[in-house]
Amino acid sequence: MGEPDIKKQLEALAGDAGRSLFGKDFLLTWEKTREELAAVAGTAGLLKSMREAGIGTRIFDSGLAVSQFRDNSTRTRFSFASAADLLGLAVMDLDEGKSQIAHGETVRETSVMVSFLADAVGIRDDLFIGRGHAYMREVAEALERAYRDGVLPQRPAVVNLQSDIDHPTQSMSDLMHLASHFGGLEGLRSRKIAVSWAYSPSYGKPLSVPQGAIGLFTRFGMEVVLAHPEGYSLLPDVMDIARKNAKESGGSFRAVSSMEEAFEGAHAVYPKSWAPFAVMEERTRLVESGDKRALDDLEKRCLAENAKRKSWQCTESLMARTRDALYLHCLPADITGVSCAQGEVEAGVFERFRTPLYRQAGYKPYVVAAMILTSRVPDAAARLARLIEKPTRRIA
Amino acid sequence: MGEPDIKKQLEALAGDAGRSLFGKDFLLTWEKTREELAAVAGTAGLLKSMREAGIGTRIFDSGLAVSQFRDNSTRTRFSFASAADLLGLAVMDLDEGKSQIAHGETVRETSVMVSFLADAVGIRDDLFIGRGHAYMREVAEALERAYRDGVLPQRPAVVNLQSDIDHPTQSMSDLMHLASHFGGLEGLRSRKIAVSWAYSPSYGKPLSVPQGAIGLFTRFGMEVVLAHPEGYSLLPDVMDIARKNAKESGGSFRAVSSMEEAFEGAHAVYPKSWAPFAVMEERTRLVESGDKRALDDLEKRCLAENAKRKSWQCTESLMARTRDALYLHCLPADITGVSCAQGEVEAGVFERFRTPLYRQAGYKPYVVAAMILTSRVPDAAARLARLIEKPTRRIA
Amino acid sequence: MGEPDIKKQLEALAGDAGRSLFGKDFLLTWEKTREELAAVAGTAGLLKSMREAGIGTRIFDSGLAVSQFRDNSTRTRFSFASAADLLGLAVMDLDEGKSQIAHGETVRETSVMVSFLADAVGIRDDLFIGRGHAYMREVAEALERAYRDGVLPQRPAVVNLQSDIDHPTQSMSDLMHLASHFGGLEGLRSRKIAVSWAYSPSYGKPLSVPQGAIGLFTRFGMEVVLAHPEGYSLLPDVMDIARKNAKESGGSFRAVSSMEEAFEGAHAVYPKSWAPFAVMEERTRLVESGDKRALDDLEKRCLAENAKRKSWQCTESLMARTRDALYLHCLPADITGVSCAQGEVEAGVFERFRTPLYRQAGYKPYVVAAMILTSRVPDAAARLARLIEKPTRRIA
Repeated sequence: MGEPDIKKQLEALAGDAGRSLFGKDFLLTWEKTREELAAVAGTAGLLKSMREAGIGTRIFDSGLAVSQFRDNSTRTRFSFASAADLLGLAVMDLDEGKSQIAHGETVRETSVMVSFLADAVGIRDDLFIGRGHAYMREVAEALERAYRDGVLPQRPAVVNLQSDIDHPTQSMSDLMHLASHFGGLEGLRSRKIAVSWAYSPSYGKPLSVPQGAIGLFTRFGMEVVLAHPEGYSLLPDVMDIARKNAKESGGSFRAVSSMEEAFEGAHAVYPKSWAPFAVMEERTRLVESGDKRALDDLEKRCLAENAKRKSWQCTESLMARTRDALYLHCLPADITGVSCAQGEVEAGVFERFRTPLYRQAGYKPYVVAAMILTSRVPDAAARLARLIEKPTRRIA
Repeated sequence: MGEPDIKKQLEALAGDAGRSLFGKDFLLTWEKTREELAAVAGTAGLLKSMREAGIGTRIFDSGLAVSQFRDNSTRTRFSFASAADLLGLAVMDLDEGKSQIAHGETVRETSVMVSFLADAVGIRDDLFIGRGHAYMREVAEALERAYRDGVLPQRPAVVNLQSDIDHPTQSMSDLMHLASHFGGLEGLRSRKIAVSWAYSPSYGKPLSVPQGAIGLFTRFGMEVVLAHPEGYSLLPDVMDIARKNAKESGGSFRAVSSMEEAFEGAHAVYPKSWAPFAVMEERTRLVESGDKRALDDLEKRCLAENAKRKSWQCTESLMARTRDALYLHCLPADITGVSCAQGEVEAGVFERFRTPLYRQAGYKPYVVAAMILTSRVPDAAARLARLIEKPTRRIA
Repeated sequence: MGEPDIKKQLEALAGDAGRSLFGKDFLLTWEKTREELAAVAGTAGLLKSMREAGIGTRIFDSGLAVSQFRDNSTRTRFSFASAADLLGLAVMDLDEGKSQIAHGETVRETSVMVSFLADAVGIRDDLFIGRGHAYMREVAEALERAYRDGVLPQRPAVVNLQSDIDHPTQSMSDLMHLASHFGGLEGLRSRKIAVSWAYSPSYGKPLSVPQGAIGLFTRFGMEVVLAHPEGYSLLPDVMDIARKNAKESGGSFRAVSSMEEAFEGAHAVYPKSWAPFAVMEERTRLVESGDKRALDDLEKRCLAENAKRKSWQCTESLMARTRDALYLHCLPADITGVSCAQGEVEAGVFERFRTPLYRQAGYKPYVVAAMILTSRVPDAAARLARLIEKPTRRIA
């Protein structure tokens, strides 16, 4: 990607859309305007082009990026670290195993104590329905108060790295991937995308990926079709949001109960397993009550239910019903005959899309960086413009 | 805090006081002169003002800050990381779980092996009486020898992040907080501060916080009153040091056996739980002999002893005896009805002082940074003066 | 080390030898030409001199250095982190405990996912015969493909931090230490070095240290004598490589079965314990089959075998047979009466060489940095020349 391209991207970013992101957290895409989402995507794209052109992007001379991961995570952990490093921030992980949070400290106090020199706090907390998002709000509120009270000299940006409700760094990466394939955000209008449940031999996969997808793609005039077996429904509030979004953007949103119907004539497909919303709620209750036996029973029941739906697989014959659709996945996928006996996708389909899938994942570090940057400076585009005019090379 | 303020702070730092800190470790405040302590506090304050004014403070282009934590720690871990990052150093944690120290390597060899490119080594080792400080001395000696032998190109600064004897990064933060409240270090003269034991439902809290407090506040002419129930005495050597300090500084030091007496007319109070010195010694012996049963017995006995002193709580009615005293705590506090059924402090008192308490904690990253900086460069004030004259913005 | 010395080192590096390292991984020394090895050593030496002269060496403005350690490691972990920091890279550890690798992801996918903004991937995987090197190749291949497919904007350098076959960062450090002692790489010609097995009370020490030593020292015309008890042989392929190397370089390589013979007239000695190759192969099979009982039996049998060879110890009386030889060890050593009742070396010998041993270890961070740098830029010497001409101070 040469310099003219960077100049074009920079021009597209001009204007005031991104300014309203300053001082705000990024927790849910549907709390942002379309213009703000476009500003984040545009900033992410520009950072990516700068990096690829070897231009230094170090905006911060120092500062911490605090990460909190409440479950295992390779990709998100590295995305956050890459984003932090890209901007000049150093990652510090608030590992609850190592820390005194486990010793009964309040969220409020700990949030402030780790943030005296922090510019960003990235949180992944997606396992329990009704918990992750609430926790992020609590952290954000603590930081806001401490900033207003003069305890913190800066207001760190809280970035949702996956909650029980939304997964904005994933859905924004998906969006950039779709936009790159279909000729920009405008090119998404009237494109049909199938967000479909798919069979997996595991249980308890979070809802935030499909929820994030339907909550975001409906903002850009896409024809979003959600497909899942009976009983595998998503959070009702997010369904409402998707319906409202579609109406406002001139797109459409509907739910169907077969993969075939969803794939018919689709321009893009996103087949992915998840646990039913009701099951996740029950699971949260059981985990909290510590009823291990009931938890085991629930898992067995769910796996048995899943096993009845092995036909929900993304096959070449299903792909043949589409309009040469782009296959998306947040990775890692359950690939039939590769990572499991039978899973979400046929090996042939996955192999055919391996490189595009890797590209899709490759947007995430830049999306995280754009979320941090637009929250921390009031004029991200202007700052990057300066770095581009008098560039320092990333490698001296 | 604007530029004039920074200039004033810079002027106050001029002179040679800080120069004698060059090449030295920071293990105990009572090994430093009053002028050196003032230089550390002044440097910390200047770094804080620079940060708040958005001026870059990156003195180091590269270099490691090695951390060693021998128990759980959120705040100290983040303080050290924040300090390192503020100066441009990268943190590497010497986690004994992961490392070969557990395999019988000598302290001397490991200290050198991890320090080839290190500028600072921060150690927290406070659990066992007679161990932490001795370990820090051993590390410091190994680094000194290796530096003299030409094995290390630089002499890393060893910083005590809490030992069995002193907790200088805490007490220096406390001192800065007091100075900020009472009009500078000079304003501390003749102020009465109550360092008091308080009830906690937990056991084995380290002695280094009250020891650090009485060892430091007595240097600045304060009227320091230590209060604790019979049997909860501190390390005798530190008591002697506090007495000597008070005599030299024109302040006073005395121990009393009631909170009421200590609070009477106090300008500041620092009520905080700790384990009796004799108990900590016994505990150390039992841990070393591996006698788990005796350890459990000891814990039970101590908790029972503690429980007899539930009246040692910082209440509003006790606060009413003071001269509108500033309430200090190193956090986290055991707050009655919040973090425990009954604890060190009433919820009302804590809430009233929440913002000042956060401020008190907020000095620590800068104190750590000042200890590293004054040890690693012979003219910290002059270096910072240059950064202020031709400032780079922390955020480009 | 003053500036004239740096200029001389820089001149010695001029020419094109290092250019062929660009874009390549560093997995085995015997895959590199003698000129390439000299270029790595020269670059490492120059970086060391620059650091010692206080000249900034930050080539990278940002970028990740991904580390993967499949067993405990203090020294290598810190060497890698020091090297990364020296160049301006931030370390991110791919800890399989924390990550989703354990969940069945393929090596290929994970390698790409963590490398979007990575400039280096350092891997230590030495425990199982036939595994570590193969794994490194797999990672390197995945990165190469992703780079060619345009998924990665840069090709991260894969650096072997110890495999089952070779330990190039160790052997190259050893080589620099030898060169410094004997007047440069040319001074190594015809020097006799004894690479000898030595008794240790532990079992399963990796073969990569002696293999790396015989595979590298034979490249520089040394008279390499390998000594070990019957049954403690090294990987046959590496023995062949050492023979071939010696022929090509005009040196020699032979195996003997007594320490005395090996030490006779030696200029340098490298006595070090290792497990027999056949035992390591059996161990790998047993670990994979999960046969814990057979593993315990194997360990017992091996320790008993070792115990018959307690006389294989580096003593002063053995040292007296040498030509005032330099004693080498990769550390930590099993020191008789210090770290064990009886071990690889007498305390007196070790003590006499403590400072040189520390120096030997001190080359490693620079060797790692040189491997990364020569792989990531086509003209490392020219880049460093620019940093030297207009130096920034490491400490502002």
